Amino acid sequence: MNIPNFNTTIDMKNAEKGMCQLMRELYPICRSITGNGLRKTLNLIKDQIPIEIHEVPTGTQVFDWTIPKEWNIHDAYIKDSTGERVIDFKKSNLHVVSYSKPIKAKMSLKELQKNLFTLPNYPDWIPYRTSYYKEDWGFCLTHKQFLNLQDDEYEVCIDASLEEGYLTYGEYLLEGDTTDEVLISCHVCHPSLCNDNLSGIALVTFLAKHLRQLSRRYSYRFLFMPGTIGSITWLCLNESQVSRIKHGLVVSCVGDRGPFTYKKSRRGDAEIDQAVMHVLKHTAKAYEIIDFFPYGYDERQFCSPAFNLPVGCLMRTPHGRFPEYHTSADNLDFVRPECLVDSFVKYVSTVDVLEQNKTYLNQNPKCEPQLGKRGLYRAIGGQPDERMTELALLWVLNLSDGTHTLLDIAERANLEFGVISRAAEALLAHGLLQERSEAPA
Amino acid sequence: MNIPNFNTTIDMKNAEKGMCQLMRELYPICRSITGNGLRKTLNLIKDQIPIEIHEVPTGTQVFDWTIPKEWNIHDAYIKDSTGERVIDFKKSNLHVVSYSKPIKAKMSLKELQKNLFTLPNYPDWIPYRTSYYKEDWGFCLTHKQFLNLQDDEYEVCIDASLEEGYLTYGEYLLEGDTTDEVLISCHVCHPSLCNDNLSGIALVTFLAKHLRQLSRRYSYRFLFMPGTIGSITWLCLNESQVSRIKHGLVVSCVGDRGPFTYKKSRRGDAEIDQAVMHVLKHTAKAYEIIDFFPYGYDERQFCSPAFNLPVGCLMRTPHGRFPEYHTSADNLDFVRPECLVDSFVKYVSTVDVLEQNKTYLNQNPKCEPQLGKRGLYRAIGGQPDERMTELALLWVLNLSDGTHTLLDIAERANLEFGVISRAAEALLAHGLLQERSEAPA
Amino acid sequence: MNIPNFNTTIDMKNAEKGMCQLMRELYPICRSITGNGLRKTLNLIKDQIPIEIHEVPTGTQVFDWTIPKEWNIHDAYIKDSTGERVIDFKKSNLHVVSYSKPIKAKMSLKELQKNLFTLPNYPDWIPYRTSYYKEDWGFCLTHKQFLNLQDDEYEVCIDASLEEGYLTYGEYLLEGDTTDEVLISCHVCHPSLCNDNLSGIALVTFLAKHLRQLSRRYSYRFLFMPGTIGSITWLCLNESQVSRIKHGLVVSCVGDRGPFTYKKSRRGDAEIDQAVMHVLKHTAKAYEIIDFFPYGYDERQFCSPAFNLPVGCLMRTPHGRFPEYHTSADNLDFVRPECLVDSFVKYVSTVDVLEQNKTYLNQNPKCEPQLGKRGLYRAIGGQPDERMTELALLWVLNLSDGTHTLLDIAERANLEFGVISRAAEALLAHGLLQERSEAPA
Repeated sequence: MNIPNFNTTIDMKNAEKGMCQLMRELYPICRSITGNGLRKTLNLIKDQIPIEIHEVPTGTQVFDWTIPKEWNIHDAYIKDSTGERVIDFKKSNLHVVSYSKPIKAKMSLKELQKNLFTLPNYPDWIPYRTSYYKEDWGFCLTHKQFLNLQDDEYEVCIDASLEEGYLTYGEYLLEGDTTDEVLISCHVCHPSLCNDNLSGIALVTFLAKHLRQLSRRYSYRFLFMPGTIGSITWLCLNESQVSRIKHGLVVSCVGDRGPFTYKKSRRGDAEIDQAVMHVLKHTAKAYEIIDFFPYGYDERQFCSPAFNLPVGCLMRTPHGRFPEYHTSADNLDFVRPECLVDSFVKYVSTVDVLEQNKTYLNQNPKCEPQLGKRGLYRAIGGQPDERMTELALLWVLNLSDGTHTLLDIAERANLEFGVISRAAEALLAHGLLQERSEAPA
Repeated sequence: MNIPNFNTTIDMKNAEKGMCQLMRELYPICRSITGNGLRKTLNLIKDQIPIEIHEVPTGTQVFDWTIPKEWNIHDAYIKDSTGERVIDFKKSNLHVVSYSKPIKAKMSLKELQKNLFTLPNYPDWIPYRTSYYKEDWGFCLTHKQFLNLQDDEYEVCIDASLEEGYLTYGEYLLEGDTTDEVLISCHVCHPSLCNDNLSGIALVTFLAKHLRQLSRRYSYRFLFMPGTIGSITWLCLNESQVSRIKHGLVVSCVGDRGPFTYKKSRRGDAEIDQAVMHVLKHTAKAYEIIDFFPYGYDERQFCSPAFNLPVGCLMRTPHGRFPEYHTSADNLDFVRPECLVDSFVKYVSTVDVLEQNKTYLNQNPKCEPQLGKRGLYRAIGGQPDERMTELALLWVLNLSDGTHTLLDIAERANLEFGVISRAAEALLAHGLLQERSEAPA
Repeated sequence: MNIPNFNTTIDMKNAEKGMCQLMRELYPICRSITGNGLRKTLNLIKDQIPIEIHEVPTGTQVFDWTIPKEWNIHDAYIKDSTGERVIDFKKSNLHVVSYSKPIKAKMSLKELQKNLFTLPNYPDWIPYRTSYYKEDWGFCLTHKQFLNLQDDEYEVCIDASLEEGYLTYGEYLLEGDTTDEVLISCHVCHPSLCNDNLSGIALVTFLAKHLRQLSRRYSYRFLFMPGTIGSITWLCLNESQVSRIKHGLVVSCVGDRGPFTYKKSRRGDAEIDQAVMHVLKHTAKAYEIIDFFPYGYDERQFCSPAFNLPVGCLMRTPHGRFPEYHTSADNLDFVRPECLVDSFVKYVSTVDVLEQNKTYLNQNPKCEPQLGKRGLYRAIGGQPDERMTELALLWVLNLSDGTHTLLDIAERANLEFGVISRAAEALLAHGLLQERSEAPA
């Protein structure tokens, strides 16, 4: 696909290497919706891009919600009567139900079992469980480990704290020529899970690195926040500036082998929806478009009725549709570097469409201008098909009446956006187009 | 289907028994568009529900039409030369062309034949014929009877009167909390014919009996009128109040074995259209939706351009599409009790959707409210699928922005209306919704 | 199809004969975008219909374009060293690249070859080439001729002039009851080529002859112009009156055996689009509807954004989709008389729909009027199907609310326009309809 890049090309090898390296660094950290794991994660991102790290105190009211206590964990285990750690948090941070309250107790297997979670259908995988809004504790283990537990007295220890503290999130505003913003958001609250959500963190970080090098029409706001409570907090604290957001994407599950899935914004016909669908139509082998539904990631909050922001969600396989989802099998091997970089290219291409997607006015709207005398039929280099170039010029002229964006024209002409935008550039250079001052109604 | 009932459940056995009993009582009566058969019919309905019986004098101008003379018949026969009644009105009131003028004459078979009507393709069935607006006479008989007629001199007698009198119709207004009305109409002018139209009379009568027991948002107006001239008369006499009608259904052919057919209102996108289609989609095995066309029953008048009322027509097999239509084979056996009661349930369900179909405003429209702290994830009893409940809650919250009715939400979410309306009730109970004062634009 | 004619019938035999005769007369003439061939052509058309012939001087500015020099050719050939004309303009006017500058020179085969054009895939056909806006010269020949050329010295002669002169076009305004216009346009700039474009010239001429005999609601403007520069010139000179054009068709490629292709106006939902599609749906065995695209014939100019006229293009096989296109094989045999006359009937039918397509107001909009007492059920002669007639009457009454044209009603009822328009006539005669003064919004 010939979607033109801003002023540079994508260094795909570098992006792939960088994203995979960042994921490997982030993998061992025990993240949750608050706490030091989250801070450590944000600091590693800060090594790549200059994000600002915000701390919001426990007890702060954010719309209908309250910032919860901060959770930190140091160690956790289940020891049998011989003192052996049969379950050890140090081996996998998934072993502890996230936000478990501290416990230190001895109990029989029978009593212990009430707080154990396994996946009988996947006996080698540890499930991922949380208990954010109900104080409780628990351990997750493989079903094989579970079946090996003998009738014994066990020592159960979760050396965690649940105390007044902060909710932490990261934010990076990359300013452009205008204050109109593109929002790129991912959640950062999952422990050692890769497709959901390290792949998103890596992609967003490297998208920011890529865009930093370029001149930009839009400002870009990158958010790294714990799911749900993070986006609610951000929306509450930034309510007055939300209207700047013209387009947005929530990034998640972008590293698996599956085909792309685009979940449209609540509006369904926003420019971001049109842009992503155009990119997928022209560059993806197989993909699925689904309508908005009020379930999933932080698009739930961005698309709540009072905000109704034009924010969609471009994924590969959506949450809950791959068996490895929310298990220890969503590990570093599950994310395919070539798939992750393919997702990265789709995001870059989409942003590029947004950047170039303007509305022009044909300056010679009465009949066609004489393209030949301006040498315009051959003026555009690198086009494989001259006839397509000529058609693109004629389409742009014919539909540049102030009611069609370049993307509208590309869709109507059934040509790639890049072909249309290059035709518009050539016409602009010859004074045959002028940019419309306001966006179309 | 879990469409919630108002405050009661439907006693289906009782409804079935009552409707069949009423049909049996009405079957022998010789009805027409005026006359004592019509009065007798309305009085039997009055034994069930307190309808008001209106009498409109012959000669009254109703829009472009004039109330015709009143027709009454006492006896009719064709006797052969031996004095035997070869055709006898007492055996079937279909034998006489409805509205035949009186005649007493002797004539040859050849002369008589001009006024005889049969169905050669169905030699055992008597056709049903009328001559309302052209003074004439005639007999209908089976083709077998016709073939048995010998070359003989026949005595022909129709002891009928066609005189100044009245057009009679029945009306029952069941008041609700508002003066907004739901119109339920059926024709009552056919003699011994069951699917068209006794099934409709029985269903409307028992729908009224059912709704009487319940609290109602809407007022319900039930009309029992002769076809065409009856609805024209009613619309002419009630023109100033027609704007109260917010939804309406014309009831006919609701007892045969066929799948449902819904003929949409002229508007095509009225709430009644949406409600019936929703009920059929979620509860009927097979059904057909057809667009309005200006032919059929009294929807022709309700949907004439100056009225254009939101009135559709929910039938099983439409008029003219079953061979028994307008013949003696449309008898008590042709109507299946289980089909008639199934139709009854569809009408009750549709009315129930209309009653519950309100537009709400999410009182916490900025991000999602915290459902967990209100115990709302489990608050709704009797839901087989908790996840569906949660989704229903989120859909209602997300789309309750004042532009979506609950039915709109159910359609968008692809969930049954009952699931959505119960979710709305739960949210309402927790103060998370408020009803919109006016209807959506 | 029963599309009613105005007051006459089409004499199809006569039209076929006349169109074929005109094509034979026009075939030998060497036309181009200017010059005497064009004048001669317009004068032959003037023998049939009283067109006005306009002359616009070289150098006149028309929007972004300039009227070019006038080109006239007297003779042209390539002679070998024996003095034999191996290529002779007198044998086919396609042999010379149209608008070739004069040349008289001797040259080797190698030098000559740079200016020779052939079709290797169709070795018996001469291609058609032009060089309007770049001064150059060239010869077109069959590939067989090309292969026979020996290594020799050739005498090349194009006895042509390219001088100050005029662009010529023909125009015929046939006035109707109103000044609202229907535009019928064809190009007249091709030399000995038949389907593109003599078939169009012949059809437009005989359509004008046909319409002259009838009373007309609309005025009809017939344009015979060189492609592109002609329509740009006409639009520039008539800019102030363009708003009179309510409907239009560009006529081309109407004589081949292929099924019909209708290219919609840029608007896509203009009445002309609706009318042509209705005619094709009800009368053509196979046809294709394509959306507007800014390439093709003079619809490119009529549909440029500042004009955006409701002008479509009704063809058989579109330009470029048949191999004979722009070759000597597009000759008198390639146009099939029965296909040409079939196209003619489609144009007549379309115009007829436009003439009759009015918007009426039901004068008895409250319920149905009593059709029986007016004898209307049988009032319309020649209808094969009485039930269809009755339905047509009811449809017209039901939808004549001021927002539906008769064509809208025909589409909605899925009946032929003629059935609907005859029903409207009958209702009008009984005072049940009145024409709406203004066009629907």
